[in-house]
Amino acid sequence: MTFTATAPRPDRAALSRLLEPASIAIIGASRDTSRIGGVALDHLQRLGYRGTVYPVNPRYAEIAGLACYPDVESLPAAPDVAVLALGAEEVLPQLRRCHAVGIRAAILYASGFAEAGEAGVARQAELTAFARETGMAIAGPNCMGLANLTTRAITAFATTFRAFPPQDGPGHVSLLTQSGNVCAIVYATGRQTDVGFHQFINTGNEACLDYADYLDYLADDAQTGAVVGYLEGLRNGPRFIEAAARLRAAGKPLIVLKAGESEAGSGATQSHTAVLAGNKAIYRAAFAQLGAMQARDPAHLTDLAYLSGFRQRSAGRRVVVASVSGAMGALSADLLSAAGLEVPRLSDAVQQRLRAAVPEIGGVANPVDMTGQLFNRNGLAFAVLDNLAADDGTDVIFIYATAYLLDRVADELIEVAAKTKRLIVVATTGEPASRPRLAAAGVALFPDVARAAQALGTYVGWLDTAAPTARWMDLRAQASTRSGGYLPGAATDEHQAKQWLSGFGVPIGAEAVAATPEEAARAADSIGYPVVVKVLSPDIAHKTEVGGVRLGLADAQQVRTAAAEVVANAVQAMPQAGQRGVLVQQMASGVCELIVGVTRDPVFGPAMTVGLGGIFTEIFHDVAHRLLPVDRTMAREMLSSLRGYRLMTGFRGKPAADVEAAAAAIAALSDAAMALGERLREMEVNPLLVRQEGQGAVALDALILSNEQ
Amino acid sequence: MTFTATAPRPDRAALSRLLEPASIAIIGASRDTSRIGGVALDHLQRLGYRGTVYPVNPRYAEIAGLACYPDVESLPAAPDVAVLALGAEEVLPQLRRCHAVGIRAAILYASGFAEAGEAGVARQAELTAFARETGMAIAGPNCMGLANLTTRAITAFATTFRAFPPQDGPGHVSLLTQSGNVCAIVYATGRQTDVGFHQFINTGNEACLDYADYLDYLADDAQTGAVVGYLEGLRNGPRFIEAAARLRAAGKPLIVLKAGESEAGSGATQSHTAVLAGNKAIYRAAFAQLGAMQARDPAHLTDLAYLSGFRQRSAGRRVVVASVSGAMGALSADLLSAAGLEVPRLSDAVQQRLRAAVPEIGGVANPVDMTGQLFNRNGLAFAVLDNLAADDGTDVIFIYATAYLLDRVADELIEVAAKTKRLIVVATTGEPASRPRLAAAGVALFPDVARAAQALGTYVGWLDTAAPTARWMDLRAQASTRSGGYLPGAATDEHQAKQWLSGFGVPIGAEAVAATPEEAARAADSIGYPVVVKVLSPDIAHKTEVGGVRLGLADAQQVRTAAAEVVANAVQAMPQAGQRGVLVQQMASGVCELIVGVTRDPVFGPAMTVGLGGIFTEIFHDVAHRLLPVDRTMAREMLSSLRGYRLMTGFRGKPAADVEAAAAAIAALSDAAMALGERLREMEVNPLLVRQEGQGAVALDALILSNEQ
Repeated sequence: MTFTATAPRPDRAALSRLLEPASIAIIGASRDTSRIGGVALDHLQRLGYRGTVYPVNPRYAEIAGLACYPDVESLPAAPDVAVLALGAEEVLPQLRRCHAVGIRAAILYASGFAEAGEAGVARQAELTAFARETGMAIAGPNCMGLANLTTRAITAFATTFRAFPPQDGPGHVSLLTQSGNVCAIVYATGRQTDVGFHQFINTGNEACLDYADYLDYLADDAQTGAVVGYLEGLRNGPRFIEAAARLRAAGKPLIVLKAGESEAGSGATQSHTAVLAGNKAIYRAAFAQLGAMQARDPAHLTDLAYLSGFRQRSAGRRVVVASVSGAMGALSADLLSAAGLEVPRLSDAVQQRLRAAVPEIGGVANPVDMTGQLFNRNGLAFAVLDNLAADDGTDVIFIYATAYLLDRVADELIEVAAKTKRLIVVATTGEPASRPRLAAAGVALFPDVARAAQALGTYVGWLDTAAPTARWMDLRAQASTRSGGYLPGAATDEHQAKQWLSGFGVPIGAEAVAATPEEAARAADSIGYPVVVKVLSPDIAHKTEVGGVRLGLADAQQVRTAAAEVVANAVQAMPQAGQRGVLVQQMASGVCELIVGVTRDPVFGPAMTVGLGGIFTEIFHDVAHRLLPVDRTMAREMLSSLRGYRLMTGFRGKPAADVEAAAAAIAALSDAAMALGERLREMEVNPLLVRQEGQGAVALDALILSNEQ
Repeated sequence: MTFTATAPRPDRAALSRLLEPASIAIIGASRDTSRIGGVALDHLQRLGYRGTVYPVNPRYAEIAGLACYPDVESLPAAPDVAVLALGAEEVLPQLRRCHAVGIRAAILYASGFAEAGEAGVARQAELTAFARETGMAIAGPNCMGLANLTTRAITAFATTFRAFPPQDGPGHVSLLTQSGNVCAIVYATGRQTDVGFHQFINTGNEACLDYADYLDYLADDAQTGAVVGYLEGLRNGPRFIEAAARLRAAGKPLIVLKAGESEAGSGATQSHTAVLAGNKAIYRAAFAQLGAMQARDPAHLTDLAYLSGFRQRSAGRRVVVASVSGAMGALSADLLSAAGLEVPRLSDAVQQRLRAAVPEIGGVANPVDMTGQLFNRNGLAFAVLDNLAADDGTDVIFIYATAYLLDRVADELIEVAAKTKRLIVVATTGEPASRPRLAAAGVALFPDVARAAQALGTYVGWLDTAAPTARWMDLRAQASTRSGGYLPGAATDEHQAKQWLSGFGVPIGAEAVAATPEEAARAADSIGYPVVVKVLSPDIAHKTEVGGVRLGLADAQQVRTAAAEVVANAVQAMPQAGQRGVLVQQMASGVCELIVGVTRDPVFGPAMTVGLGGIFTEIFHDVAHRLLPVDRTMAREMLSSLRGYRLMTGFRGKPAADVEAAAAAIAALSDAAMALGERLREMEVNPLLVRQEGQGAVALDALILSNEQ
């Protein structure tokens, strides 16, 4: 299997003109700054754009002091980008004229395309075809426009730019959203906490350029230090994966908020895996594997964008809390722990040093309670924080103080921040006057302790993702396309599936196909009792439900009877199903049973699900998901991430399970799925019996659903 | 068992003087308004207190225009309350003088009591004894002072009252916290969203008045419409329970944030239940049973206080989302669902009516996307919201709009709010100019969509708690003290425990005690095979772990051998344990096994834990907790709240379990625990085997740990 994006990669030079324009034409420019054709012009003139702006409108000779041109053909030079403030019907004819005069990029505000019934869908198809033919970089339609906040090339008609002007100088956070409103909201809330933005991209209908195309561009954009995204659904999984991984490799965070998460996949599937691996779960798995931070809500998204701006500071999972109140210290510790961080007890040596500064009634173990004496005692805050910054038993300093007390100790805090490279997070209540000075000193300031704790937890989790993401991308690049001899046909039965899987290293047990009850008995004699007899048919996925399985058969006579029965039951339950006799299998038992399956996600391609059988998956949904390929290391991680993993490590006197063998079998199933490539629909081993340590694992049942070649 | 608070109830008249003072003496008054003795005086003078204020300090004749008295003996009249701005050593002598001149209430700022080593502990004990003897109502020590924001009797030294002045007129939310800082923070954030406060109480060391004493007072206080609390640990569970239930019965919310939650109970316990029923879990159970809302963090606490101010509006679980953006509508729906609310599809009839107003590109199913056209089309918002308010398919209207658009449609929204009694929640971004008008119209306004969704989810959950809380309090009042014949002694063995429990209706199976292997064999003959043989000892709680259990014995010879072995094993493993021979029991099987136990929580008294056995409790902690008593209805609720309940209702072709019989057995165990009263330590049936529907349940093992009479 190869992992290439199917859509052609957009022309980078044209994209560059779209996103970094040195000249802009507004076609349909208006004098009315409350109209779409007037807002962009107003933004460009008033918010500091230094490039050339060409208003185009046959009704005016001049707008707001700029020469206005009757049409694109009259422009003195082809601008980098044309902004079309026109209705849907006028878009394509106008684009052809733009292309004819050498314009390579365009922004389309117009609605009335794929979102607006059949006629709109047809109109959008024409537009898509035009973009493919010409290679023009076209944003929208049905988008709010774009903005480059560094160059102030602001053509988005969001009113938010008036209320919250861009930062002075270049920004480093690029917004990339599938909603103009979310783009504007995150921009506004980010500006309120001094986030500096670079690109402001909302993708609209994605008729020509899609989410992954922009991400691909931003991944190689030197000015972009982090991408903050909102998305509802991706069209191009492979390109997204490549771009996201490039961002991660460069140490640039990708922070995403995903909406409209469906609870589970389609019901029209045959394996248990397919039901477990809903679209929501696969997106989550993909984000985790790519080292993207997934935000829970818009405020969390903004907070992560803000906190990511402190990447030059060192951070880690162990947090020391310094508070001005025992209660707020305790609450902070609770919230940090809930966010997956540690609040370890400080060493006795550090506690002794702190005790020299902290009043008797304050705590020094962690949380450290500096007490209200902070207000009266000069140097108390410095002494505490300076000691904490030097302690290698923790990684991050987390402070709670009211705005009033924070202002009181701001100088001491700033002095410590200058001495240490360590991340310092402050949660406060109220509006501290010292905010700008604290910001300049590199202190991260949050208006709420819960938000601070949650953002820190997600951010610190991200720090550990560089190596695993890189590792997986390497694995993906080397993805095996080794064939297992023949490829199984669409009508593969259990025995054929196992045989084929065993070629990749999936362990199987002794078994034989028998056409008659008598053959079954002979096979059982040779395998050894007790045995299992199952009906064999490529059309019956759930054999037990049709009475097609008999367990624990102890002698030849039992096998004969069972063989006749399972076939008769199957014929009665599913008369149309193909019959290939019965499968005689050695009875096996072990420490636990796993379900291991692969499905094909419409966006991300093949994805694996691993869980313990029975109530673990069916009641507690205790499963792990990964995009393929999965190797042994990843398989071990999947197993150990399960809550039920305890069952495999010696639970209640049971022996430990052969985790290595299970991991090897999981990796082998991944290899097999990769080999099946585009033909894969679903593949499942259920159960994979895992014996005790050193005694291996065995696939007791297997299912392969593939498309014809 | 009786459920009475052990500490004497404080004198209500004295408490009333403390919390509603008409005159206040500040002992240790200062001219310096940055010192504690000066802040209170300053607050009283500048924030509108109309009562009489007496500064007391021998060093001044006058402070800030008020006559200053040298000592309490010189005061022209005994004030309602004395505020002692004095050091710890001076407190008790001064209190005696206050009491001598007829003062009945006092507020103690001083630290240096129980929080400050042995000397402090002794000092606090003296203080406690003094309060008991005199009946004075004493707040603190080590507290920030109190405030009545309605009368402006503000003696708390929090600087927050300067930054955020109290509302005009009376407030209805009373703060009751175990931390002065949290009290001040919730006050400040509440004032920023227009919450009007009545009492501001922070309890300090609770040497005399504790948390439950204040809650008891507030429960009967007509001015208090809701109590917002922070707590770390309660001293008086029964009084808390009574007060919380009275608040609930009056329709007044109790909203609590609990910090310092320990993960699990002490390890020094003998039953599985005791490990499962940690302090954190019991607090949660108590809050739920009492109809208190438990907040997750300080912001959630404030949000719930705010939202509770809209109780005159109707609300329910079904929410319709109306947004100006498809993306924000989708995100809102995700967040509301995650908060336990429903976002149901609107009926076709309602959708048709909405479609007349909403542009083609907007959604009308729910979420409703009014689109940016809201800005241009007068009447669009009114038409949509008016229709939604009339739809009986939903209960609450949830709106997202940016501040800019919200201001644009504020008049239309206010018109709808005036027509409907329904709760309208608005989440916005930015600061709307229309905020005061929306507030006056009864619209609940949140600065963040996630916070709004979370607060609404918790608040709506609270609405359903009135009836169950009242029901449980009735049950509690009637709590059975029926005896089961004799009360079991401290050294009760399994057989004795079962016999005693069966007197309350706990179902047990056929079993017999045998002193010798031969007796065991005879007993088995009479019971019928297969049987179980267990060692019988009051000292061995975990028989399996000492090799004291043999299952599935098929004949007399197997029974003889097993009987000898289990005793020998037990003697070897625990030579000191008392031996009473063996117990021979009928082998039984059923649909599932429950663990049902009762422990004694140090705060709340007897509490029950119910779970499915094995991995359900040990890996997934899938258990339900309730304070006793528990009747059949509550038992059924406990069972159906388990994630594993599916196992009892016909899981994977298994028969449904006899839930009624299980509930009856659980209620019977509750009766037994209640009968044991103060002697109860731990009681557990593990497992309670539940057979298929109609075939009952049976306690296969039982354990009672009680104190000597």
